[in-house]
Amino acid sequence: MLSAEVLSVGTELLLGQIVDTDAAYLAKALSELGIAVYRRTTVGDNPERLLTALKHALEEADIVFTIGGLGPTMDDITRDILTDSFGDTLQIDENIAKWLREFFSSRGMAVLESNMRQAMVPVHGRALSNPNGTAPGLLIEKDGKIGIALPGPPNEFIPMVDNEVVPYLRAKTGNVGTIRSLMLRVAGVGESAAEDKIKDLMLDSNPTVAPYAKVGEVHLRVTAKCDTAEEAERMIAERAELVRARLGVAVYGENDTTLEAAVVTELTKRSRTLATAESCTGGLLGQRITDVPGSSAVYLGGTIVYSNAAKTDLAYVPPELIREHGAVSGEVAAALAQGARRRFGADYGIGITGIAGPDGGSEEKPVGLVHIAVADASGVKADYTTFIGSRQIVRHRASQMALNMLRLQVLKEKS
Amino acid sequence: MLSAEVLSVGTELLLGQIVDTDAAYLAKALSELGIAVYRRTTVGDNPERLLTALKHALEEADIVFTIGGLGPTMDDITRDILTDSFGDTLQIDENIAKWLREFFSSRGMAVLESNMRQAMVPVHGRALSNPNGTAPGLLIEKDGKIGIALPGPPNEFIPMVDNEVVPYLRAKTGNVGTIRSLMLRVAGVGESAAEDKIKDLMLDSNPTVAPYAKVGEVHLRVTAKCDTAEEAERMIAERAELVRARLGVAVYGENDTTLEAAVVTELTKRSRTLATAESCTGGLLGQRITDVPGSSAVYLGGTIVYSNAAKTDLAYVPPELIREHGAVSGEVAAALAQGARRRFGADYGIGITGIAGPDGGSEEKPVGLVHIAVADASGVKADYTTFIGSRQIVRHRASQMALNMLRLQVLKEKS
Repeated sequence: MLSAEVLSVGTELLLGQIVDTDAAYLAKALSELGIAVYRRTTVGDNPERLLTALKHALEEADIVFTIGGLGPTMDDITRDILTDSFGDTLQIDENIAKWLREFFSSRGMAVLESNMRQAMVPVHGRALSNPNGTAPGLLIEKDGKIGIALPGPPNEFIPMVDNEVVPYLRAKTGNVGTIRSLMLRVAGVGESAAEDKIKDLMLDSNPTVAPYAKVGEVHLRVTAKCDTAEEAERMIAERAELVRARLGVAVYGENDTTLEAAVVTELTKRSRTLATAESCTGGLLGQRITDVPGSSAVYLGGTIVYSNAAKTDLAYVPPELIREHGAVSGEVAAALAQGARRRFGADYGIGITGIAGPDGGSEEKPVGLVHIAVADASGVKADYTTFIGSRQIVRHRASQMALNMLRLQVLKEKS
Repeated sequence: MLSAEVLSVGTELLLGQIVDTDAAYLAKALSELGIAVYRRTTVGDNPERLLTALKHALEEADIVFTIGGLGPTMDDITRDILTDSFGDTLQIDENIAKWLREFFSSRGMAVLESNMRQAMVPVHGRALSNPNGTAPGLLIEKDGKIGIALPGPPNEFIPMVDNEVVPYLRAKTGNVGTIRSLMLRVAGVGESAAEDKIKDLMLDSNPTVAPYAKVGEVHLRVTAKCDTAEEAERMIAERAELVRARLGVAVYGENDTTLEAAVVTELTKRSRTLATAESCTGGLLGQRITDVPGSSAVYLGGTIVYSNAAKTDLAYVPPELIREHGAVSGEVAAALAQGARRRFGADYGIGITGIAGPDGGSEEKPVGLVHIAVADASGVKADYTTFIGSRQIVRHRASQMALNMLRLQVLKEKS
């Protein structure tokens, strides 16, 4: 069994200014590959301490990972020190140098000397590509040991682990993987209610079923341990089918499928279009839908109608409706949904109006009250809830409920 | 200056099943006490590895902390191993034993032998009280070194740090000095360019200035170590002023201030209103602005105009402009900004149009190309960039650039 040590580099970690989520992510990926991690270490942006820690790690582990310290600034010492610790030297990688020059010149910026440091790679190594930043990762293989340097920002770190490190190590380790898991994603049912329906399954030790509460949804992780991956996959598939039978349409997707992606998929299948009219969510619903690649085929657009005048002008809400029921009401939510549908000529319209807080609530209409409506050719359905939590949480839960109401309505149509 | 090492104990940390927020919390508390942490280490529930790590830590640091492994189960090895590493022995603390017996009998439970392990304390040490669990912490003082063992669950850990550890160390260190820091947030300037302007300041050891690259912005942390908090605050204020003088309006805020909050503040100061017309960001800009409490006073609303028809209908973009220049063009961005302004009767309008990807790019207009415009009574300004990264990153960076262009335009007006 291969062993690894993970070294996080950054004074901000030692000062407790950021929490090291990267190290946990990597540790999880390694455990799924069957690679043992016996120690994790964090040091500051200090060359001697980093070198000492690397040498110490290389004495005990087959693979040494560093996280952070790959940027262009003087603080970013990992590239040099990792290479030193392997007794290797850096040389320029012309492909990366070329890419960096193009990157900066296409932005009308001069390439600084410090930027070109990012084009240096070890003689016994290579760069790991980083589509989300200018700092490539590094891989060294020398004297039977492996060194891998990864960038610190999670949006660069996670894709590099998933797309570069895991495939490399999978090839390196052969077929060690015998633990498999599948996440079933559930919306519109709370954690306790979901748990209630699968209580007996949660007692089994292989496969296991474990619930994780998220904001506005529940994830159920099904995990199996077997001699072979095929066996584990088969066991998971059977158990997942049983969970789906218990929870029905509440299961909206698997693994990384988001609720907005599930909605876009169902609309696409049926060649249906959507428009939105948002008040309290202020664009969040549109943002979530358009986060999904290909959403432009089904999402025609939306309006963000914070003011009453905008509700009338852009989403055809009659002023007397607002006067009579208030801007935060089921009637106005319904009018917004219908107005969105009409304004964009869409098959489905969603309207959201509510009080996200922290101010603006009253006894009758408290902070967190949100009315949501979905309109289609058959009419309009409105619902409301009072969410608890911060402004961000209320808005997120409102967008979640809106997406799920739409999804359930769309599912009634044959695909 | 005293130095400390933090050792987290737990196989679940090495497997990445939990994120180590405790270590970050403790590190922050220590830095505020002026105690330097040079290394953090994580090991599993393995006696030999823990002992090795403790000995290694005791060679270098004055104070060694352990987090976790104090429970009643066999896995919980920290009490014994920490005591061993100090060459000390455990003895029963009758007060704790009594408290444990009462604790269990009041719950109608038998006291197991394993529970009584939690009543053992080192001869050269004492227990740290834990009102939130049955595992007391431990403190050893021997041969000029200090060992402190803390429980892992955050609801037990945090109160013990606050109520036991910090007062003890404050007394121990006397007035050893304080570390204070301030984060300056910078937009519109890359990490290398920002560093270029403050290179000389980054060489100073007190106060220090260190850059951190974020998506679409840079944070500069100014940190000072002094005998008193007042001294440290004064030193930071002076250094921050110098940094601000170098970077000018690129510094948009301090600490937790977001760019959208800075924009809302500047608009509010001047009683100016804003409207948006978004294509590729699909509501993200509106969402970010409306995330700021009180934004309803300045943000009138927006349109999400994915389709060309919607651009014309909702934001008054002339169809011939789209035909001539394409939907992704500076001309259309400018028309969107002016259209948003006119549609909502706002002082400022923002227009965004681009190709977020992953598909839809061409040689002439690649994925990541985004045109952004800001309109006000004096006219309209447009700019464009080609961002790299995922769809999410391109969209975030586009919203970031739009907010910053607006901010710079608003700053030209007297407040």
